[in-house]
Amino acid sequence: MKIAEMHVTPIAITDPPLLNAAGLHAPYALRTIVELVTDDNIYGLGEVPGSVATTNALEAARAVVVGQDPFQLNAIQAGLERHFGPEAAGARGEAPWDKRRTVHVFSAIEVACFDIMGKVTGRPVCDLLGGRARDRVDFSAYLFYKYEGAGGALGFATDPNATGWAKARQAAALDPDGVVAEAQAMCDEFGFKSIKLKGGVMPPDEEAAAMLALQKAFGPGTPLRLDPNAIWSVETGIRIGKQLEGVLEYYEDPVRGQEAMAQVGQAVNIPLATNMCTTSFDNIPGSVRLHSEDIILSDHHFWGGLRASVELARICRTFGRGLSMHSNSHVGISLAAMAHLAAATPNLTYACDTHYPWQSEEVLAGGRLPFDDGALVVANEPGLGIELDRAALETLHQQYLDSGLTERNDEVEMQKVQSGWKFMATRW
Amino acid sequence: MKIAEMHVTPIAITDPPLLNAAGLHAPYALRTIVELVTDDNIYGLGEVPGSVATTNALEAARAVVVGQDPFQLNAIQAGLERHFGPEAAGARGEAPWDKRRTVHVFSAIEVACFDIMGKVTGRPVCDLLGGRARDRVDFSAYLFYKYEGAGGALGFATDPNATGWAKARQAAALDPDGVVAEAQAMCDEFGFKSIKLKGGVMPPDEEAAAMLALQKAFGPGTPLRLDPNAIWSVETGIRIGKQLEGVLEYYEDPVRGQEAMAQVGQAVNIPLATNMCTTSFDNIPGSVRLHSEDIILSDHHFWGGLRASVELARICRTFGRGLSMHSNSHVGISLAAMAHLAAATPNLTYACDTHYPWQSEEVLAGGRLPFDDGALVVANEPGLGIELDRAALETLHQQYLDSGLTERNDEVEMQKVQSGWKFMATRW
Repeated sequence: MKIAEMHVTPIAITDPPLLNAAGLHAPYALRTIVELVTDDNIYGLGEVPGSVATTNALEAARAVVVGQDPFQLNAIQAGLERHFGPEAAGARGEAPWDKRRTVHVFSAIEVACFDIMGKVTGRPVCDLLGGRARDRVDFSAYLFYKYEGAGGALGFATDPNATGWAKARQAAALDPDGVVAEAQAMCDEFGFKSIKLKGGVMPPDEEAAAMLALQKAFGPGTPLRLDPNAIWSVETGIRIGKQLEGVLEYYEDPVRGQEAMAQVGQAVNIPLATNMCTTSFDNIPGSVRLHSEDIILSDHHFWGGLRASVELARICRTFGRGLSMHSNSHVGISLAAMAHLAAATPNLTYACDTHYPWQSEEVLAGGRLPFDDGALVVANEPGLGIELDRAALETLHQQYLDSGLTERNDEVEMQKVQSGWKFMATRW
Repeated sequence: MKIAEMHVTPIAITDPPLLNAAGLHAPYALRTIVELVTDDNIYGLGEVPGSVATTNALEAARAVVVGQDPFQLNAIQAGLERHFGPEAAGARGEAPWDKRRTVHVFSAIEVACFDIMGKVTGRPVCDLLGGRARDRVDFSAYLFYKYEGAGGALGFATDPNATGWAKARQAAALDPDGVVAEAQAMCDEFGFKSIKLKGGVMPPDEEAAAMLALQKAFGPGTPLRLDPNAIWSVETGIRIGKQLEGVLEYYEDPVRGQEAMAQVGQAVNIPLATNMCTTSFDNIPGSVRLHSEDIILSDHHFWGGLRASVELARICRTFGRGLSMHSNSHVGISLAAMAHLAAATPNLTYACDTHYPWQSEEVLAGGRLPFDDGALVVANEPGLGIELDRAALETLHQQYLDSGLTERNDEVEMQKVQSGWKFMATRW
């Protein structure tokens, strides 16, 4: 069995005007969909954060991937590393999202290979990763400060015909009351039990007030998380952290870099989590030496695939680190891959992040994957357990072409609202 | 698909009178063979170091294993951990071999499950571990000081009809000339390119002289290793190490414990290797903190199976440790599993240890697995690529019953030759 075809399709999905430390989400989030097709016509799907650079890198990867046996992941990875060379790997960058190219490319291809392997062997992907440690994967409510608006063609306008969560997610959320209302609507709709607020947007005391308001609204046992995306100073991180002891389940990237995280960790009695200061195996020795965090948020898109994420889980177990999962705006291919990975990872004990409720479009036949009481029931069908809706893919690809977007740049989007706004690596 | 039957068969295989730090090999080495059979009559094989305790533990594991899907490794492992509890795990012990029970039990079962998974999916086991990074796995010549004798029923006698290596391996090797002659006969027969001497037997200067004699005989580029099995003092480890700088490829467990290893490592300019001071994931934090060794010898039998060994490989890559592979006396099931694991481990760059040339019996249909110019060609057949010779298994099981041996105890065997001989954790 050989990979005979590789299709790379950039898509744009409607995204509401969500705020974060780097600015504002554009009306569309970009993803790139990879489809590998074997010579016996079995296809597998992968999905990664989109950009022209990533699409081009995936196109360039075709020369390495086509002709390979999808089970030969080590050979494919070595081939890609040779093809791209270390200089093409790219750096993570200071934004909340990760910009490394080679790991994204390999991740998309590896997931598609696992989808094929599962279909060929008649096994769900989780069974090829050691089998399921759980049948249901819990996700968390991922709250954002946001402007009013539906995103997409509506931009900052709202759809008057929307109902339920689709209506609620159009509302602005710019203060504690707005954040609580958003949380209530999202938890009512999806059944999430853990709640995360993307911070780094409002002055730190306002964000602390929002967390206290969430605790008051949802009760003191509710697992709450705050993620200022590393734009606070150590002083601010400690000061706000002390206010939130006993409130937060974990405190995600309050400050930038392993040294600063370690300082906050020593001063504040809340577990620290990261998807910014420890984001690759190269960062692990520093993490161990400094104890920069207590919990690592894995992400198969930037740790180098599903197997690498299982290996990260072993490292977490070995060094007494907790393990949770990070997300970016995504469709169901990534969600399915995340669910299979989480199902096969015994020590992934925290509810995973997902932006999925903020999106409304899908490339999957049958449409959006449903949450059941805050969890995704892990499919038992072969592979990822999903099928591609080719018409939907084409529609979202056309939407990508029409959007004119070529990469994620939340600073530029923010400047359309607040002239002269600038990203700051440390703002408060 | 469910596991319907689990057969546990202790066997004894003829072993010559090999010397090591703990004494003398008995005339037979013990192994326990595990066969799992699915409800659709597909069987998988595993093999671990044998003892009554291990056989009993495997028998007790049957209640957990039977009825399980062989792909559900996480569930099987969790079930075994619950069943046995942490207190049954056992300790590694001070002898050159490992005495932990739960990891041995799981390792045997996991390998048998992989064999089944491979057969069911039509894939060699290496393809279920990420695919092959290499098609040939290099092994090293594993030299022992030894008394004259063939082992088994012949004990210290020799078979006058033996020819080739079977004749050569009967000879005594008790000084540098004997060690060189043994090495030449073994390398002539199998084509090994790397050479390891099991030390900790003769006074340290004699062992250093043997290494220098090997270097003289095989040339200065030959990768040589010396393994005193941790019974030297730090002073001796440093003194002998300094004599062997530029001679050894690596210096394996000269001293006992991570602290002592770190002291030797700082003083001697040879990479240190271990399969004694860092032998479980629990030991990894100490290894990282102290830098107790430069190279870890993995062993799927005591690291907890094939997936755990792949995870160990990632840890080695992450912390800049080299990776090699340890062995005990074994038959072809373990050898095949080791070869598949090594094939799927990109950073397993050293020739692996194996005792296989010292044994002559086999439980495999088709007999002994052949080395080709020092390497095992990794099978492309489904599973481990081996089939069980049930008559041979029965013969070796009867040999086990007849041997009267219940566990490995090299001290007792040594006392039969040298009355009052005692193992010493630090001898020189």
